Amino acid sequence: MPVPAPNLYPPFNIVRLSHVEYRVTDLAASRAFYVDILGLQVTQEDDHRIYLRAMEERGHHCIVLVQADTAEVGVLGFKLYDEPDLDKAAEFFANRDLPVEWVKRPHMGRVLRTRDPWGIPLEFYVTMDRLEPIHQKYKLYNGVKPLRIDHFNMFSANVDASVAFYNDIGFRVTEYTEDDESGRVWAAWMHRKGGVHDVAFTNGLGPRLHHTAFWVPTPLNIIDLLDLMSTTGYVANIERGPGRHGISNAFFLYVLDPDGHRIEIYCSDYQTVDPDLEAIRWSLTDPQRQTLWGAPAPRSWFEEGSTFEGATPMASDLKAQPIIAP
Amino acid sequence: MPVPAPNLYPPFNIVRLSHVEYRVTDLAASRAFYVDILGLQVTQEDDHRIYLRAMEERGHHCIVLVQADTAEVGVLGFKLYDEPDLDKAAEFFANRDLPVEWVKRPHMGRVLRTRDPWGIPLEFYVTMDRLEPIHQKYKLYNGVKPLRIDHFNMFSANVDASVAFYNDIGFRVTEYTEDDESGRVWAAWMHRKGGVHDVAFTNGLGPRLHHTAFWVPTPLNIIDLLDLMSTTGYVANIERGPGRHGISNAFFLYVLDPDGHRIEIYCSDYQTVDPDLEAIRWSLTDPQRQTLWGAPAPRSWFEEGSTFEGATPMASDLKAQPIIAP
Amino acid sequence: MPVPAPNLYPPFNIVRLSHVEYRVTDLAASRAFYVDILGLQVTQEDDHRIYLRAMEERGHHCIVLVQADTAEVGVLGFKLYDEPDLDKAAEFFANRDLPVEWVKRPHMGRVLRTRDPWGIPLEFYVTMDRLEPIHQKYKLYNGVKPLRIDHFNMFSANVDASVAFYNDIGFRVTEYTEDDESGRVWAAWMHRKGGVHDVAFTNGLGPRLHHTAFWVPTPLNIIDLLDLMSTTGYVANIERGPGRHGISNAFFLYVLDPDGHRIEIYCSDYQTVDPDLEAIRWSLTDPQRQTLWGAPAPRSWFEEGSTFEGATPMASDLKAQPIIAP
Amino acid sequence: MPVPAPNLYPPFNIVRLSHVEYRVTDLAASRAFYVDILGLQVTQEDDHRIYLRAMEERGHHCIVLVQADTAEVGVLGFKLYDEPDLDKAAEFFANRDLPVEWVKRPHMGRVLRTRDPWGIPLEFYVTMDRLEPIHQKYKLYNGVKPLRIDHFNMFSANVDASVAFYNDIGFRVTEYTEDDESGRVWAAWMHRKGGVHDVAFTNGLGPRLHHTAFWVPTPLNIIDLLDLMSTTGYVANIERGPGRHGISNAFFLYVLDPDGHRIEIYCSDYQTVDPDLEAIRWSLTDPQRQTLWGAPAPRSWFEEGSTFEGATPMASDLKAQPIIAP
Ligand SMILES: [Ca+2]
Ligand SMILES: [Fe+2]
Ligand SMILES: [Fe+2]
Ligand SMILES: [Fe+2]
Ligand SMILES: [Fe+2]
Repeated sequence: MPVPAPNLYPPFNIVRLSHVEYRVTDLAASRAFYVDILGLQVTQEDDHRIYLRAMEERGHHCIVLVQADTAEVGVLGFKLYDEPDLDKAAEFFANRDLPVEWVKRPHMGRVLRTRDPWGIPLEFYVTMDRLEPIHQKYKLYNGVKPLRIDHFNMFSANVDASVAFYNDIGFRVTEYTEDDESGRVWAAWMHRKGGVHDVAFTNGLGPRLHHTAFWVPTPLNIIDLLDLMSTTGYVANIERGPGRHGISNAFFLYVLDPDGHRIEIYCSDYQTVDPDLEAIRWSLTDPQRQTLWGAPAPRSWFEEGSTFEGATPMASDLKAQPIIAP
Repeated sequence: MPVPAPNLYPPFNIVRLSHVEYRVTDLAASRAFYVDILGLQVTQEDDHRIYLRAMEERGHHCIVLVQADTAEVGVLGFKLYDEPDLDKAAEFFANRDLPVEWVKRPHMGRVLRTRDPWGIPLEFYVTMDRLEPIHQKYKLYNGVKPLRIDHFNMFSANVDASVAFYNDIGFRVTEYTEDDESGRVWAAWMHRKGGVHDVAFTNGLGPRLHHTAFWVPTPLNIIDLLDLMSTTGYVANIERGPGRHGISNAFFLYVLDPDGHRIEIYCSDYQTVDPDLEAIRWSLTDPQRQTLWGAPAPRSWFEEGSTFEGATPMASDLKAQPIIAP
Repeated sequence: MPVPAPNLYPPFNIVRLSHVEYRVTDLAASRAFYVDILGLQVTQEDDHRIYLRAMEERGHHCIVLVQADTAEVGVLGFKLYDEPDLDKAAEFFANRDLPVEWVKRPHMGRVLRTRDPWGIPLEFYVTMDRLEPIHQKYKLYNGVKPLRIDHFNMFSANVDASVAFYNDIGFRVTEYTEDDESGRVWAAWMHRKGGVHDVAFTNGLGPRLHHTAFWVPTPLNIIDLLDLMSTTGYVANIERGPGRHGISNAFFLYVLDPDGHRIEIYCSDYQTVDPDLEAIRWSLTDPQRQTLWGAPAPRSWFEEGSTFEGATPMASDLKAQPIIAP
Repeated sequence: MPVPAPNLYPPFNIVRLSHVEYRVTDLAASRAFYVDILGLQVTQEDDHRIYLRAMEERGHHCIVLVQADTAEVGVLGFKLYDEPDLDKAAEFFANRDLPVEWVKRPHMGRVLRTRDPWGIPLEFYVTMDRLEPIHQKYKLYNGVKPLRIDHFNMFSANVDASVAFYNDIGFRVTEYTEDDESGRVWAAWMHRKGGVHDVAFTNGLGPRLHHTAFWVPTPLNIIDLLDLMSTTGYVANIERGPGRHGISNAFFLYVLDPDGHRIEIYCSDYQTVDPDLEAIRWSLTDPQRQTLWGAPAPRSWFEEGSTFEGATPMASDLKAQPIIAP
């Protein structure tokens, strides 16, 4: 098996993915998309920045939209278990000769800023302002009725190496795609919080963010979103789906925000808390891995992504081709 | 408006579409598809013929599968309101110099066999054996849980002429697609029973049957069918969807039986009983007419269909091109 | 069988139930309920009157709310097929010595006002202002996402007699409940438009309106409404459900408007267009007739209803008792 | 707040609840219920014992049905993280003067058998036979389509004490009900695996098992089960629901197996992995805590439960009364 055994005793305890900062070129247009169409809730906003949370989240934000000249991704945030984990994390990254910086962030306690070996900007924290529950304020539910942030998916120029690094810090592989010829990993799904993934990596020009995903209750929410987007001027922002992933077994839809940042709407994956969960292997040539129902993804889905602030993407030397819609 | 005003006083009273005879080249393979995958119920069968009904139907059959050398369509059946309507229908078709024949059919009373002006074999009847209700025998529900036959969709080499003929016998147009340049009708949806259609016509090599549709309760039944077909060897039989039609507003999926006869699974259209219902016009160049969400249909969907026994398809002289997936 | 054979050639052609006028004591409170909670769309309003339609309706209104001192029902409206049907209806009611009056109603053509033999105020019309379709304006969908008015249910002091009268004018019985001892009909469901019913009658102090029902796409819409009402101050307005009716097989919920007018939210019944459809008989002692799942209805549901303007309810002499929740 | 702060560093690491042994008096009747109605999959069986798993589980079993003279519960099983956790658990229970026994169980590695202070039989293990995934074998899905075991709910004669004990071993309170007068906890929900609970305790004659719950994808699965049970002879086995819990926000149904063991079907709760998740407090007098929609539970639901082998239930001295249906 080309994926490493899970690291049951990682150097620090990551609870889950937490939030993403999207730099956007037209804050009002992005607000319309994320709030009026997707249904995320504004928890704070000013002329430069909008904080959003999903319906069952009590942390202050899962997305920060920042007005900027260039659309890119500012940072990926992860919640740690306890204060000592922050210090252990700092030590880990320092030992790997990766940057370690303690930064101030509104609504958050101590924040450790660093980068992974390929330059993806990462921030770790333990405490973020906690807000009143709104998951039973049904009058607020709108759009796709997003319940919570679910995962990040990233392009990597070397998925084997990305998997090794994130495995070291405790992410456990649940499913992966292998290139039969080279035996290399084409894509991998890795979790901390007990679903199929908190992070995933796909072979390609990387590092870039492929998408951020939100969890919704049922496939009907996704159908509602398609109907809504199709009749409010967003039909061109629908990129792929709806469909059932072979990998993860989740029902999905991919849409693009006004800057082209890709958002997945996602439901119905499975519980993965068992530490002895066996990773499921898929062949790159299996057309059902992407869509169980057989429909290939469009070319844009394989090629386009959001750059990370301060990280220069590089081409992958793994040239195997997935199945692309004609 | 290029579609005729509804004929509120047709020469005879058609209640609804009723059944289709499919000639199939491998009866066992067809049985597996219609019974084990789609979930239709066998009401009678022998080595040559299988009668099927859907879950809320009390008439003896909505599909007859007949073992044959060639896959084609034997007949489209329609239920009339009362016995006198049968005689009025015979008179109508005779006056149009169309064939009129009284035939014997198992499980049915008097049956009038005729053809439309382009050769589509039609049979009209008033009484068919009535069976015990099974719509509350939930243990029998299986596959996509089909509730009832919903409509026939046919290729026509002259949709304007098809619409005029079927309008004469009481079908009322609910929606239609117009070729903006020629002003001709590209496709039309016409009903008797109070939904968007009992019959529809699409420009193309005709007459041929494009598909027969079945009504299901919710989009989730369609998702269940996709999951089932994808994991039981039928992934290649999934042709198009799932999606929301612009026209009819219905949620749909198209699948192919083992002989390539196309079946649509369909739900969520709207009530059309008002005799003053205004037909909705769509432009042939509107990508949302086929799929509200913007995804075009594949080429096969525009080109392939089932021939009718004894009817020779002819090319249409309307060469306008719909939007086809690349 | 204690229900009459269907009258296939009624004296005039009723297409469907159309609208109800509710007199309400606090128009603003009623608006909040019908618009903000149920999601009906306002088509016109002033200080005294609000016209509402459901999402797939093109007629101007299905509910008229009228500010009044007393909560009652002003009229039940029905759409006829063609202008001559109006005159035939007038003749029919005159021949039965029932009142016949031609009245002016905003947004409507000729309107015939009459009463049934027990005083229920009825209005028949052919034309009502037609509005632009909104069924694909998904941004407007709200609350329970009501698609169309579905049926009226009325208390009758003599259900056998009510059934006979409405059968005479073309309503066809689809299901009924019989009191095994007396052999009398306890309740009956009768349709024109091809569903289980446009009107139903239940034994009790009558005539009174038991409820008006709206059709929604799926049971999940009903669950959404329950969640919404429960968290916006309307928990006490939830009277019964959700559940599956044995009779009609529909999924249902009963809620009360601010004046106690009862509204049913309803989906999943079946098609009944066949003129030879056999009515389904239920015993009054069968607990599954009301709720297939066995839960009895509360006492209020059997006893409370809305009076009709100008009609004095009388007790029924059929004293059989249905199954009431303890 | 009357519930303890979470113990972030418990003495051993419990991953999740795992399985329950039900002793049943008619193994064939129980098999019909769990397999043909609920849709659990048999992984092994003989004349005395049936092992079952749910659709997304890869462990060998979540329920063991054992033929017995008396219907009771043999054991509640929990999966630990790693082998050393087993030894730490043994030490913990020994230090509390609770029984510690190493037992042999088919399909499992080392098994530690013990009891909680009130006599509930508990077994802890790390490894159980792992089976091939079946979550994408959609042809096998049946009944309510159960995905995984979700939680145990137990009667306790002293909920405060039960919460304190299970908190000590790492279960974290997510929601609880407080008796306003006494300030004592009436009921509490506690998790390990990141949902609202793995275990819950309710005041009453205890220890007894109130129910075991299974997770399903959507509320429609629960409606399907109701329709199925209602039409296959199991209508009397439907005890309560469907409804939305106030506590946990989950959609639920309670049914009884042939011996009266109570099974909950459950979906739609929320993610609770944050270690700083604030427990939500409900008042015992809030009618919406049990059912958000206001309907009270029946008396049987408060009073009946399954005894544990070898544990004698005792009455609670907390006499506060919840709201019971009349
Ligand atoms: Ca034996
Ligand atoms: Fe994803
Ligand atoms: Fe169709
Ligand atoms: Fe009703
Ligand atoms: Fe529970």
